[in-house]
This record gives sequence, C-alpha cells and structure tokens, in this order.
Amino acid sequence: MPEPTAELHARFSAWLASRQESICRALEALDGGAPFGRDAWQRPGGGGGLTRVLEGGRLLEKAGVNFSDVSGELAEPFASRLPGSGRHFAACGLSIVLHPRSPWVPTTHANVRFIAHGDKAWFGGGADLTPSYLFDDDAAHYHRTLKAACDRHDPACYPRFKAACDRYFFLPHRGEGRGVGGLFFEDPSAPLQAQRTLAEDVLDAFLPAWVPIAERRRDRPFGERERAWQEFRRGRYVEFNLLHDRGTTFGLETGGRTESILMSLPPRVRWGYAHEPEPGSEEARLVEVLRHPRDWA
Amino acid sequence: MPEPTAELHARFSAWLASRQESICRALEALDGGAPFGRDAWQRPGGGGGLTRVLEGGRLLEKAGVNFSDVSGELAEPFASRLPGSGRHFAACGLSIVLHPRSPWVPTTHANVRFIAHGDKAWFGGGADLTPSYLFDDDAAHYHRTLKAACDRHDPACYPRFKAACDRYFFLPHRGEGRGVGGLFFEDPSAPLQAQRTLAEDVLDAFLPAWVPIAERRRDRPFGERERAWQEFRRGRYVEFNLLHDRGTTFGLETGGRTESILMSLPPRVRWGYAHEPEPGSEEARLVEVLRHPRDWA
Repeated sequence: MPEPTAELHARFSAWLASRQESICRALEALDGGAPFGRDAWQRPGGGGGLTRVLEGGRLLEKAGVNFSDVSGELAEPFASRLPGSGRHFAACGLSIVLHPRSPWVPTTHANVRFIAHGDKAWFGGGADLTPSYLFDDDAAHYHRTLKAACDRHDPACYPRFKAACDRYFFLPHRGEGRGVGGLFFEDPSAPLQAQRTLAEDVLDAFLPAWVPIAERRRDRPFGERERAWQEFRRGRYVEFNLLHDRGTTFGLETGGRTESILMSLPPRVRWGYAHEPEPGSEEARLVEVLRHPRDWA
Repeated sequence: MPEPTAELHARFSAWLASRQESICRALEALDGGAPFGRDAWQRPGGGGGLTRVLEGGRLLEKAGVNFSDVSGELAEPFASRLPGSGRHFAACGLSIVLHPRSPWVPTTHANVRFIAHGDKAWFGGGADLTPSYLFDDDAAHYHRTLKAACDRHDPACYPRFKAACDRYFFLPHRGEGRGVGGLFFEDPSAPLQAQRTLAEDVLDAFLPAWVPIAERRRDRPFGERERAWQEFRRGRYVEFNLLHDRGTTFGLETGGRTESILMSLPPRVRWGYAHEPEPGSEEARLVEVLRHPRDWA
C-alpha cells in the first residue's frame, strides 16, 4: 500500500472511531434506558475492532454501532472479485443497525467503509430505512436528509445511489424491498478525496435523518397486533441479511467476528406460514410500497 | 428420461404422497390441538406440490410436511453441479420439519427425495435431531432407530451417513453442529433399487425415532428461562437454513415456492449479542456436545 493510501486509511479510521463515540453518546441520550457495551477484539490475521451494542433500552430494543480496522491476506475467490490486485487488503468501517422497540419507529442501518486492495483504494457505504408501518412523511424526511448530503457533492449522485439502494436491498424470493431504501454507494473510479468527503457527509447525515422520526413516533401506543407485525417484518430483515447481504456473508465466510457481524439481527422475530396482511390494511399498504419503490425526496 | 426411471419416479412419488397423508394423520393425533392445512400449488416450469403446515398446536408450535413433484429445465450453474448431463430434470421429495412448543421436546427434520437429471437418477435424504436441552437417552433412541433402519441394508452405512450428517449440519461461524445429528445420505453410485428401499426405510423410521421422545418430554413443565433458551437456539437453526442449507438456497435461487421452502423456519426466534449459557448449566452442556459430536447409537 503506497504511503498516501496508508495515511488516508489512518486518518479515516481515526475519524470513524471518534464518530462511533459521538453516535453512541447521542443514541444513549435519546434512549434514556440502557448504555452501549464496549467489546474490543483482535483479528488473528491483523487488526481488530470495537463492537458497541445496546440491548433492552427504552427506545432501542437492540442497537449496534461497530467499528473495525482490519488488514491481512484475502483468500481466493474473494480477492479476485474485488477491484485491485494481489491478496493484501486493509479496510476500516463503521456499521450501525438500530432495532427500535416500537413498531411505529422504523429500523435503520448505515455503513461507511474504506478498502485498500493492492493498487486500488475506495470508499463505500449507505444507509436505509426499514419501517414496519409506513408514514410517508418519515420516508420523505429520511430521503431528503440523505439527498441534501449528496447534493453538496453532485446533484446527479442521489438518484443513482437511491436506485442502487433499491436494487441492493431487495429480496427476490419475496419480490419485496427490505425497506423504503436510502443510499448505496461504491464508486472506485471517482476521485478518492471526493469519495471520502461523501462518505463522511453521509455518515454525518445519519442521525439527522433518523432521530427526528424516532422522536415523533416513540410515544405512540401500540398493541399485540402491531408488535406481531413488526416481528414478522423482522423475519424478512433476517432473510435479507443471511441470504443476500454481501457484508454478512463475506464477513462470515472470511472468518470475521461472528458476534459483531450478526449483531445486525433483530432481537425477537417471527415466521408464520403464508402470513399475509389483511387487504386494505396499513400492513398491506407497506407491502405494496415495498413491491413498487417510490421517489421519496 | 428412459422409461424405467420415469416409472420409478411415478411409483416413488405416489408412495411419498401416501406417506405424507399418514404422517400428517399420525402427527395430528399426537398433537391433539390443531390440524394440518392443505395448500396445493403448481410450478410454472412444470409439476407442483402439496404443502401441509400445522401452526399453533398443543405439542407442535409449527410443523410442515411438504410433498413436491417437479420437473423442467435447470438453469446453469446448477445443472452442471449435479450428476447427469443436460438441463432436464425431474424430482420428487417429502420434507418434514417439526418445531415443538416445549423446549424439552427436540426439533426434528427429515427429507427423502428422488432426482433424475439427464442419464442419471438417484435417491437421497436424511433426518436429524435438534434439541434445546439434551437428554442423552433421547439422542441415543433417535440414532438407534435410524441405525436399525440402515443396518437392514448394510451395517457399514450407518457410520458413513451419521458422519456425513455431522459434517453437513454444521455452522462454521459458530463452530457448532445444528443439533445432535442423524443421517445424511446421497450415493448416486449405489444400485438404484437399494437406494430406493433405503430411502423408504429411513422415512418409515422417522416417526418411531421422534414420537417416543415427544411423548416422554411433552408434559414436563417449563418456564421463561427454558423458553428463552429455545428461542435463542432456534436462531442458530435459522442461521443454518438461510446461510448453509443447500435445499433452501437452491430452492430459493431456482424459483421454488418461497412459502413451502421457508416453512422450515421456526415460529418465534431470538437473537442476543454474545449470548452465552451459564458455565456448568444444562444449556452449556448442550453447546459443548454440539461442538464435539458424539457416537449415540
């Protein structure tokens, strides 16, 4: 890895680590019920991370904000699937998954990462929203906040990243999106410095995109019907993450730290045979929208 | 497909369909609380099936006994991974998954199938036991019953199929078996008639292997601790089925009927971060055994 890439890696890694702290502090203050734990780990092949998980909060039933900074040798066939040559890689990233207790508050996820492989280095990431009940205002606020972060760089990029997100977070066996989308970006051909500031701005837009939604929905009462529906929808979340999510399957297959990778799975989940929402219900409206992605911004 | 294979297919398919009826009847009588539904379906590419699911029973929280008989053209790369040539295939099978309500009663699964692909045809299948709490007597009874079915054919086959089962139902990212094993067999090079009678005898050993265990454990009282542990263990079951089970991933990727394939997933499931049983507990003993498969027969 030539020196400038190593420096970029080190600076971005330090920035991610400081954002991990501030995001956890902000979420703890918002939750008001439980703190984030702190599990530092080493990777046998090189590097390590700090996994921070909150369970049993007032707002957050389960939340993870995970930092990792790892390096080493990639096994084939993974090495040849990535841009760049050879087997040596270095990567750092921050992954956030929030599973709220209330079915009215949407699940959300964000990830930003830097990867260096041989002579190539690039940034990537994204953020997406997974409601159990759809409030159009919430989806619009989330998308507009992310769009504003993108527009500061290039007004052409939000529509591309929004479409890439809809394509990526899709369950073909269900014909449904995982949620109402957000951003998904990874463009190794763009200037590296521009990729970096975009990744930083997207991560910094994450709390402003989600927190106002959580604040306006968290105190709304719910009952067994809404809770059951939320747990069935979480089943879809599990299906996506274990069947399709490249971060999850790549991480597990390359010997990543299992508990840090699978912190993304929801705490309580249901599956039922051919479970279908009542026609005309709010539950049915959500599924309809997941089958036909909309423009939200 | 030459005529004798087509006849074999037709006879085995009819036998499976009749066994589906008798197994469902036996399980309904044992359960005493809920009947199996009956969902017939057609496959757009050819064939179809009958999915029978029981939910909310007294003994069985969720159970599926699924028959399918399908044919058509296999997409690459699947066609070239199978024995036989060309793209045309025909297959029939019966899959059983039982998720009991009580944590003391083990989950179990069985599958037998016939596949014809080009000039090759073969049988395969297996059965395995997944306890949340380990009663050594139960594991021994299950294995001995399956071993007796194998021994009628060839005393050399049980140890091979038992070892294949331990290898197949393994979660590398957890370092654990899915359960305490059973049988896994698929030997396309053996004489076809011998494969068939073995598949039939294994399926007929399934109820005698599991029902006596269910009968002696079903009335034992349990509390929140045991139920929570069962739901965490069911999380491992989901991880195996969605990450590793070839039947599941192959079925979903080749456009199989999603609800019939995913009926295998348990009804209520939990995930917790780094959830570990108390050292010295019965829960810890189970995990220890799943990490070091034993001879049970």
